[in-house]
Formats: sequence, C-alpha cells, structure tokens
Amino acid sequence: MSAGVPSPVPPGRLRVRIVGTGLIGASLGLALTRKGFQVSLDDPSPTAAALARDLGAGTLATQTSVAPDLVVVAAPPDVVADVVASELSQWPNAVVTDAASVKGAVLTALRDKEADLSRYVGSHPMAGREKSGAMAAQVDLFEGRSWVVAPGPQASPGAVALVRGIAQAAGSVVLVMTPDEHDAAVAAVSHVPQIAASLVASRLRDLPPGAVALSGQGIRDVTRIAASDPGMWTQILAGNAPAVRGVLESLAAELDAVLDALRRLESDSGAGSVGARAILARAVADGNAGHALIPGKHGAAPTTYATVIVLIPDEPGALGRLLRDVGDAGVNMEDLHLEHGIGQPFGLAELSVLPAAVEPLITALSSLGWPVHE
Amino acid sequence: MSAGVPSPVPPGRLRVRIVGTGLIGASLGLALTRKGFQVSLDDPSPTAAALARDLGAGTLATQTSVAPDLVVVAAPPDVVADVVASELSQWPNAVVTDAASVKGAVLTALRDKEADLSRYVGSHPMAGREKSGAMAAQVDLFEGRSWVVAPGPQASPGAVALVRGIAQAAGSVVLVMTPDEHDAAVAAVSHVPQIAASLVASRLRDLPPGAVALSGQGIRDVTRIAASDPGMWTQILAGNAPAVRGVLESLAAELDAVLDALRRLESDSGAGSVGARAILARAVADGNAGHALIPGKHGAAPTTYATVIVLIPDEPGALGRLLRDVGDAGVNMEDLHLEHGIGQPFGLAELSVLPAAVEPLITALSSLGWPVHE
Repeated sequence: MSAGVPSPVPPGRLRVRIVGTGLIGASLGLALTRKGFQVSLDDPSPTAAALARDLGAGTLATQTSVAPDLVVVAAPPDVVADVVASELSQWPNAVVTDAASVKGAVLTALRDKEADLSRYVGSHPMAGREKSGAMAAQVDLFEGRSWVVAPGPQASPGAVALVRGIAQAAGSVVLVMTPDEHDAAVAAVSHVPQIAASLVASRLRDLPPGAVALSGQGIRDVTRIAASDPGMWTQILAGNAPAVRGVLESLAAELDAVLDALRRLESDSGAGSVGARAILARAVADGNAGHALIPGKHGAAPTTYATVIVLIPDEPGALGRLLRDVGDAGVNMEDLHLEHGIGQPFGLAELSVLPAAVEPLITALSSLGWPVHE
Repeated sequence: MSAGVPSPVPPGRLRVRIVGTGLIGASLGLALTRKGFQVSLDDPSPTAAALARDLGAGTLATQTSVAPDLVVVAAPPDVVADVVASELSQWPNAVVTDAASVKGAVLTALRDKEADLSRYVGSHPMAGREKSGAMAAQVDLFEGRSWVVAPGPQASPGAVALVRGIAQAAGSVVLVMTPDEHDAAVAAVSHVPQIAASLVASRLRDLPPGAVALSGQGIRDVTRIAASDPGMWTQILAGNAPAVRGVLESLAAELDAVLDALRRLESDSGAGSVGARAILARAVADGNAGHALIPGKHGAAPTTYATVIVLIPDEPGALGRLLRDVGDAGVNMEDLHLEHGIGQPFGLAELSVLPAAVEPLITALSSLGWPVHE
C-alpha cells in the first residue's frame, strides 16, 4: 500500500462523507449506516441533506466535522468534476470517489485541474430507479448490482481498495476496469441501446392511426426504455460522447450495408440479389452471436432455458395461482414473460425453466387444469 | 355481394383447403376443425400432411376431393405467390388467401401472372412461435392475436368477408388495411425493430471479455428478439424490402443527426454544443412520443400504470407466493418485469398496477413481510 493513503479500518471507525443526497447518495448512506459506517451528509440544498438524515442515511456534515476517510460525490453529471476537485482539495488525506455514469470525462477534467489523482478513484454503481431524490432512496438499492470501480493510472492501490470495500459493503458486485474500458462498455450495453430504442419508437409517429395496433411483444421489448427521461439522457450521452459515437458509427456502417442490400433487392430480384440476401442474413446472425454473449441470471455464463407457455385468464390472482402451482411442483422459474392478447380476456405466460424441468412442469400443470404448451 | 363469390355458408358445410401444413397451417386446421369446418390438408411433403392429419388438423386432400370454398396458402414466403396462382387456377370458384407476412409483393406477383384477383384476399395472422412445423401446432395459436386482412383493389367484398370470417373463427381480432398499409406497418412495428435489435446486439462482439457483464435489463429487453432465425428473417426482410428501406432510411437520417451532435459535443463543450444537446434531447423525446402510441393491454388506449417493486428470494415458489398474495389483495397486475441481480440469490419483481391499487397493494404486501417499494 502506498504512502498517503489511509489504512483499512473497521467499518465502525471508517468515516464516509457523502456529497449529494439524491437517490444514489441517500441510498448509499442508508446502506453504509446499516453496516456500521460513520456517514456524514452534505448537499447544496440543506433541505435535501436534512431529508436524507431524517430517513436514516447519516448525520449532517458541519463545519466542525472530523475529516472523512472517504468522500463519495453523488452529484449531477455536469458538476461532478468540480465537486470532486473541491473535495480533494478540502480533505487532503481522504480518498474521493464519484458515482457518475461516465468516467473518462471526469478524469480528464480533474487532470486539467491538476487535482491529486492518487486519491481519486472513479466508480459507477449500476443501480438506479425511474424516480429520483432522497425520498426514493432504498437501503438495498445496490444489492446484487454491478458496481464498476474505474481507477485512473495514478490512483493508489490503497485508494482503489477503499472504494472497492465501500461498494462491497453496499452489497454490490465489484468490477474493476479502466475509465476508457468502462465508457466503451456502457456505450455498448446502455447508451447505444437507449438511442436505438428511441429511434425505433420514434418511427411509430409516422404510421397512420390504427397501424400501431399491429405492435407485438417484439417492439414492446425493443422500445420499453424509449420512455426514459430526455434531460437525463442528454447529460449521459453528451458526457460519453466519444465512446457513444464510436459504437454508433459501427452500428451506422452496418445499417448502411443493410440499406444498400435492401435497395439492391428492390431493383433486382434475380441472381444479383444473392449477395444482398447474404448481407441481411449476416446482420441477423451477427446479432445472434452478440446476443449470446449477454450473461444469464446471476452473472453466470449464458444458459439456454426451455420455455413452457401457459394460457392464463385475466382475473385477479390467476397469475399468482399459476406461479404458486409452479412453485408447488418444485420448479424454479428462471424468467417470465407475459404477453397480453389483443381484445381477449387472457394472456400468455412464457415460463423459462431448465430443460430438465420441462416435462415434470407440464405434467404437474396439466394435471391441475392449466392449458399448457411446450 | 358480387357474383362469382360463394355465399356465406354455416361452418359445418364450409370447406376449407389448407395448403402447407407447418406451424400456421396445422394450427389453423386444428382451430377450424374444432369450430366445425370441413378442413382438408395438402403439403408438398405427404409426411407433413399426414402428421397434421394425425394431430387432428383435418383430412388429407385427395384427387377426388370436393372443391373447396376457401383455400388458405400457408407456404414459405418465397413460394407463396406461385402456390396462390396455382390454387386460383385449380379451383375456379374458390376464394384464396395466404398467410405470408408481406402482402404487397404477393399481390404484385399475382398481377404479373394475370391471376383472378377478385378471388384473392391476402391476409397475415400475427401469430407465431419460436418453433416451426406441425408438431408445434396449437389450436389456440391465433386466439387474441391480430389477423390483418389486406384485400387488393380488385378483391370482391364477398371474398373479403369469407377471409374475415375464417380469421374470426380462429379467434383472431381482424384488422382490414391495404397491402401497402400493412407492409408499412409491419416494417415499422416488426421488421425495423428486428434489424435494430440485431445491430445493437452485434456491437457486443466488439467488447473485451467481461465488459458485457455490465449488461442490465435495458439491453436484455432491446436485444431479446436478436436471437431470431437469420434464414427466416432474410426472407421476411427481402420480401418487404421497399417498406423496410423507407422506415430504415428515416431512422438512418435521425441516427446521422445524433452522430453529428455527438461529434460537435466532442470538439466543442462550450456554447456551440447547445444545439447539439437539443438534438439529443429531441431524439429521446420523440422516442417518448412514439413509445406512448403503442397500445396497452388488450388493444386498449395506452394507460400509465404505476409500479411497485418487490425483492424476491431466489427459491422455488417465492414468486408464486408473491403473486398469490397480490391476487389475495384483490389487485390485478397489468404487467410484470423480473430483474435478476448479478451474483446474488434474489431478484426484483416490478409489478405494474393501476395507480389507485398502489397503496392497498403496498399495505397488503408489507403486512405479509414482503420488502416492497413504490
């Protein structure tokens, strides 16, 4: 462990200062307080800080507060670098981390400010809600979520260890990567999917009334996140502009190839269109390959589950009865998709289970009268 | 009703000939046989036709079969037009429909063949499964699904009525539109979402090992359909090339604008980037507007549901117990999303309910010990 970095101390004596008591800051305060850390809270809005305190997220920071061992900056993306620099300067013995969803831009800004980068370790808890503010805080917000710790090249090992420890104490699974690796990863797994969902949903505005009625489960899934907040996403996309651009340019190039293939198929349906069909098939097959890389439940390697489809009546408790029956059969569902019929008083439940569980499940459910299909 | 078109007859006497006994043809045979129609089955593969018969989808067509009132062609997309033309010629008093997922190209091909277009009414049952073949057939495959009836301008009203009647008899909700309207609609609600999902999933192949571990529910939803079959989708996309190209060009133009905005943000983080941020915000906001057009459950107008989030342990029956408790509380779930934690033995269930049901549901579940959040 390098000099100038606090030695590990038991949670009971570790002092954590949280700056910014919105959803993330207040939830972290709740989680760390429960684990026995000494948490102090600060926010530009005294009312917001007091609310987080009243919820049990920690004590209010004061002018006479003892110096913290760790500062967590949970401020809006556009002010994170300024606040981190200020905290590094104000607490010369503390490690400082932040929770912004983009890491390269913060590190670059701190370098420009000539901040002490040995004590700064960027991080990104992959947790959030559709609500914001301390009132939405949850003590278990981080449990089971990934928390990326993304140290720059100058960060001291001790500082990295301290930030890892906090993330683990909050219940998260820690992933360590460089800021650039993090930004490229979230561009591909989060920011570009958001843009794609928005652009696909946007096309529905061009359809005549009634045509949208043909929407099935596919477009519902593809566009679910298109309901996200434009203001928040503008900050995120702008903050990660270089990485998002890189992934998006690769997508745009393949999109151009698909468009070119479609144009060739329009103008020539004979032998000249063979290459065009191959391009379309390749695009879908490459998507198969990419999709197969997404980890399965619990971060395990992707597993192929079998599906059992059950018709359920649309009445209070019907789905509950079905899933109780599934549980009584000793079968653990790995996933569940509901598909609602149009204009019909029932839906389809698609249960994903391990392949070996299919036959016992069908037998059990059929014997109870459920209309079931493999 | 125009001359030359069979008058409506009761199901018991209506003769339906199904050509192509794969998933769609065999399922339709099962549904219509149950409703009392006289169904005969034909397929280029005698084995496939015999299998459908053995499953109860109808009787085998023979050389001496009585002439049908209606022929349903459920053949692969690339041979549909040829088979429809042949059936129109073979049965000069029958109405012929098909079940291909693209309608304009079939009609154009039939016009080129100088087929009798007064007796042809294209249709598209919006039903399918991830499995194919008669063995996957389901008597209720069409129940509650949309079934588009897309007559060309020369189709007789009686022929249209007959095809509508069959779709309704199979349990579908009929939507009537022109072939071009249908093709534009499925391009936007099905074909372009498929391409977008494939292209987004494809980008994951460029990530270093481990980075895909950051995948959350967003990309899982966006890319779920990226697991689709390349061969089938190549046929679908090629068959609807003009309409898909149109929607995709509109998407590509907006994508270019987003890329341009990202480049401007990279090169200028000052006042010059204000317009760039507005473009990003507009793209997400337009996505909001498009997403809001997707009909809610049962084809009703979109409704905004409230969500209640419950932490569920990963053990057999836990989700079933939760949903039974929801049912016991007299609350009807409108939708359910499961989110699995990474490396943790539990998941989050996001229950969508009517806003008025939130408080009673939270009270009921909390009193039973469920960790619940609004």
